[in-house]
Amino acid sequence: MNTSTSTITRAVPVAPSTGALRPLGVDQVAITGGVWGRRQEVNGTATLAHIEHWLEREGWLANFDRAAAGTLPEGRRGREFSDSEVYKYLEAVAWELGRRSDAALEARFRAVVARVAAAQEPDGYVNTRFGRGGQEPRWSNLEWGHELYCIGHLCQAAVARARTAPGADDGLVEIARHAADLVCEVFGPGGDERICGHAEIEVGLAELGRALGEPRYVEQARLFVDRHGAGTLADHEWGRSYYQDDEPLREAAALRGHAVRANYLASGAADVAVESGDSGLLAALDGQWSRTLERRTYVTGGQGSHHQDEAFGDDWELPADRAYSETCAGIASIMFSWRLLLAEGDVRYADLIERTLFNVVETSPSAEGTAFYYANTLHQRVPGEAADPDVVSPRAHSSLRAPWFDVSCCPPNTARTFASLGAYLATTDASGVQLHQYAPAIVRAALDDGREVAFDVATEYPRDGLVRVTVTEASDSPWRLSLRVPAWVDGAARLVVRPAGGELEQVMEAAPGMVSIERAFAPGDVVELALPVTPRFVRPDPRVDAVRGCVVVERGPEVFALESVDLAGTPLEASDFADLRVDPSVGPRAVGDAGVEVEAVDERRGERAAVPLVRYHEWAERGPSTMRVWVPVVGA
Amino acid sequence: MNTSTSTITRAVPVAPSTGALRPLGVDQVAITGGVWGRRQEVNGTATLAHIEHWLEREGWLANFDRAAAGTLPEGRRGREFSDSEVYKYLEAVAWELGRRSDAALEARFRAVVARVAAAQEPDGYVNTRFGRGGQEPRWSNLEWGHELYCIGHLCQAAVARARTAPGADDGLVEIARHAADLVCEVFGPGGDERICGHAEIEVGLAELGRALGEPRYVEQARLFVDRHGAGTLADHEWGRSYYQDDEPLREAAALRGHAVRANYLASGAADVAVESGDSGLLAALDGQWSRTLERRTYVTGGQGSHHQDEAFGDDWELPADRAYSETCAGIASIMFSWRLLLAEGDVRYADLIERTLFNVVETSPSAEGTAFYYANTLHQRVPGEAADPDVVSPRAHSSLRAPWFDVSCCPPNTARTFASLGAYLATTDASGVQLHQYAPAIVRAALDDGREVAFDVATEYPRDGLVRVTVTEASDSPWRLSLRVPAWVDGAARLVVRPAGGELEQVMEAAPGMVSIERAFAPGDVVELALPVTPRFVRPDPRVDAVRGCVVVERGPEVFALESVDLAGTPLEASDFADLRVDPSVGPRAVGDAGVEVEAVDERRGERAAVPLVRYHEWAERGPSTMRVWVPVVGA
Repeated sequence: MNTSTSTITRAVPVAPSTGALRPLGVDQVAITGGVWGRRQEVNGTATLAHIEHWLEREGWLANFDRAAAGTLPEGRRGREFSDSEVYKYLEAVAWELGRRSDAALEARFRAVVARVAAAQEPDGYVNTRFGRGGQEPRWSNLEWGHELYCIGHLCQAAVARARTAPGADDGLVEIARHAADLVCEVFGPGGDERICGHAEIEVGLAELGRALGEPRYVEQARLFVDRHGAGTLADHEWGRSYYQDDEPLREAAALRGHAVRANYLASGAADVAVESGDSGLLAALDGQWSRTLERRTYVTGGQGSHHQDEAFGDDWELPADRAYSETCAGIASIMFSWRLLLAEGDVRYADLIERTLFNVVETSPSAEGTAFYYANTLHQRVPGEAADPDVVSPRAHSSLRAPWFDVSCCPPNTARTFASLGAYLATTDASGVQLHQYAPAIVRAALDDGREVAFDVATEYPRDGLVRVTVTEASDSPWRLSLRVPAWVDGAARLVVRPAGGELEQVMEAAPGMVSIERAFAPGDVVELALPVTPRFVRPDPRVDAVRGCVVVERGPEVFALESVDLAGTPLEASDFADLRVDPSVGPRAVGDAGVEVEAVDERRGERAAVPLVRYHEWAERGPSTMRVWVPVVGA
Repeated sequence: MNTSTSTITRAVPVAPSTGALRPLGVDQVAITGGVWGRRQEVNGTATLAHIEHWLEREGWLANFDRAAAGTLPEGRRGREFSDSEVYKYLEAVAWELGRRSDAALEARFRAVVARVAAAQEPDGYVNTRFGRGGQEPRWSNLEWGHELYCIGHLCQAAVARARTAPGADDGLVEIARHAADLVCEVFGPGGDERICGHAEIEVGLAELGRALGEPRYVEQARLFVDRHGAGTLADHEWGRSYYQDDEPLREAAALRGHAVRANYLASGAADVAVESGDSGLLAALDGQWSRTLERRTYVTGGQGSHHQDEAFGDDWELPADRAYSETCAGIASIMFSWRLLLAEGDVRYADLIERTLFNVVETSPSAEGTAFYYANTLHQRVPGEAADPDVVSPRAHSSLRAPWFDVSCCPPNTARTFASLGAYLATTDASGVQLHQYAPAIVRAALDDGREVAFDVATEYPRDGLVRVTVTEASDSPWRLSLRVPAWVDGAARLVVRPAGGELEQVMEAAPGMVSIERAFAPGDVVELALPVTPRFVRPDPRVDAVRGCVVVERGPEVFALESVDLAGTPLEASDFADLRVDPSVGPRAVGDAGVEVEAVDERRGERAAVPLVRYHEWAERGPSTMRVWVPVVGA
């Protein structure tokens, strides 16, 4: 492992003190357009306000006011973890304010922080659901109470604020510090030796410790990580694997149990492993990541096969039509992958991040950013009911995007991810800059030796595979620009260097992995990566029973789907959706503006037609429909 | 529909006043050996005592004592529906006592009835979970409280007692009558217009009305049936379809929602339809039965695709490895099919009953009858943990049979089914006797015109396909003996009549359906049905995604499975179970004593071997293992 240390404070969600790569902050990478630029704009202009509206409307913000007024438990609303949605909202706003200044948003942020501050007890405890007369005592239900989970999200919000507005006087960082101190006191050495039923405190404390230079927090995170598997939480219908308390984390073969819990825990454990130099733990996590990707991850990057316990299934248990693939699990998987990428530098992690971003995280919100999928099925057999934009959905598996849920973890989770997305695009190491994700962007980085470099990225990716990097600022000495050639590339990618000074163009072919150019770049130098984005069929691993005899169509990083609305006007319009097959000897064909079509067949009725596919993340944008990502081939 | 009416009281679970066929009681059909004879013996000698032991140990019986003593809610144990397990136990014992006399068992029965009687309130209400100070009020939580459900099971227990011990002075019938009167008062015309979240009161009241000649109960059952779909119960995460309150029963296309609830409701609705001559409702139920069989039923006869809500999935959604196929749903399906068989006489219903008996109901209990499956998966990817015979399982989906569950509906449900199984073998109509299920038995029947006939059945079924009926008592005039030729028969069945008087043998070929002989039978006349029981591959409907490219092996009515323990000593012993395929060009072969083997292949390792299959209902009897019913074919 090629590592070096850094103590520079950056506006990043994750700032390891050591590792193969160092992250760039949201103040260093500005996304300027494209899919993610539009998504960030919608997130900032519509989603954040939507979330605050629903937090207020559902009374989850008012719970803090009631706590401050001393009137709880009367009138408390929401589930036991509703406080955490407020913290995720604050985190999202903090990232948004780190990305662009907005006085009105800053004022809203401070107003919410003040309401949280007023609810904090003198000893640092903050939770609207426990600890008062008429409520269950503090820490009395660690299995299901989510108290530490909520504090973990509070810590992550404070981390975002500390790194994007250092020295700000709103008080959020102090609230988190006070709560974290209490956690260390209660759960530290010699104290309560249990864990939280929903991992999150680990990642929250580890990062808060990094952000504030407080090793006690990192150490407390390590204690929580190591206590998993001791069976301190009660057994129940789904088993202790549900909360990763069945076996020690370093002995597990793959991620297991509740998919969000598993990925949050793995993320915190990766932080702890890096900070404590625990290469054994890091290797164990890496092995779990690999096995989970191979055997327990959907083609979309989605994770979690069970509706019942929102959990991973056994190896190869990946049903398409009962895919749970919770939005939050996709986000948590990105958190885990990103930490391994920073620690180890392996391009595989960025590959999975890309797949998950385009096919899970981008699938959840509607184009308007005001309705969301909680679960992301890969097969819709019956058209769902249209969700009412004014009604809370009791159904996590709603087949149409809903504005809010009884359990509404996913909307604010997407918001904090989109607001901080710039920080996941590029990194630096001793040799230069690595570009992991492609979007129109302005990148400014300080290399290890202090040199400042900058470049613009222009691309229509993923509709077009051409990524053009134009250097805008460089020193006289050489540095290395590395670009990821995704694992999905079938055939050769082509890298072209066009020096500004009229030197000869340099052309090279590149296979999946990292392709690098090292030179004394000059402003105006252009590096172009051309990735082939022709549509392709992908066949499943033969051990995945659920999709045997099926293919999926991909184009670039995007997964496509067959949606019933696209049969209108074709000879297959009257077909039963369950009878449709695809003829793999024809196509898939590129059509129109970056579209894809396949030859679909109804063997029962003897009909066939060319049918356009929909980008999976855009399905159900045209009303209730049936849909399938994996389509059986003729004769299967 | 060929119908006639009957008012004769028989020892039967279902006694319609009209219908195509009339049932014979447990006092008229005695199973004398074979699979079901052994199972009845184990049930009577081991399972009933096992159940009473656990009801006592878990405090579910003591709840009634606490109610009588006025000390509830303190010390109440068990879930909100635990009373119903006591009633199902009483029903099972009543059937057992109807089948054979047993003074000790009779005394135990009376002792439990006395404890229930002491808990009944003066107005007839009986439930240990609701209605007292410190408990929720009566009828305050119809969605989840199961109060009417419990009374429904009380009614079914009373029906069993009324029909097997008419005039007995234990008091069970009076308890049920008193409770049923209260239900009619509270929920009758002009009263509370809601329904119970778990159907059962319908079938309980309808049958109690028939047994006691009380049309008010049947009418109340009709009211409950008709109220489904009015949305009187609250919506929730899984939707009102969970308790069949989303649309009127007569408008539904198929069974939907919770699979036990759906089948109990359909059973009660069938009773109501028959009693009220509602041919429209009966036709709707018949259509739902057909569509459910075609699209929502496992090859085992199992029903229920979802673990989360124990519910049917959409059409064709039949995952093997997350099959829920609750034991109780199989039993409830048999209840529904039996009612349609009596009403309409169609052999299809008996076909499904046979498939479900052999592959769901018989799968649940261990050979010793003291451990049970709650869910019956069709694919076990990872060996389960061995269940502790002394510990209550919190896991409905335990992969090894457990002695008892937190929700322990299945053990007593199997017990009442096995104890009354004789009543499901044969029926009469105006023309004679129909034999639907094959087991060694002594059958005695009164024909409509009063003639008494009797015959013995000798068979090794299903290990052997020969069924020999020997007439032991007959009148001089002709009557018709009909035997079911199951739908699984591939090729011709052969029927031979060997008259006792030395007349010429009569031989005929028979296709699936009913085959009949009408003659003036004489004692000693023999009728032999030879059913071909050669093993066969069965391919799935191409619309079932989960098992595309797979085959299942059946032999007679039994489904077979590939179980990992059978790989020991073969070249495939070291194979990953997920890599195994079957070569459909070879076999399946009959081996040994009614065994079956297939040619299994590991394409990855280039190995192949003949491997014996296990009867699905006998899997996991040799310790933790992996297993699959549907096996992929080579190259799929």
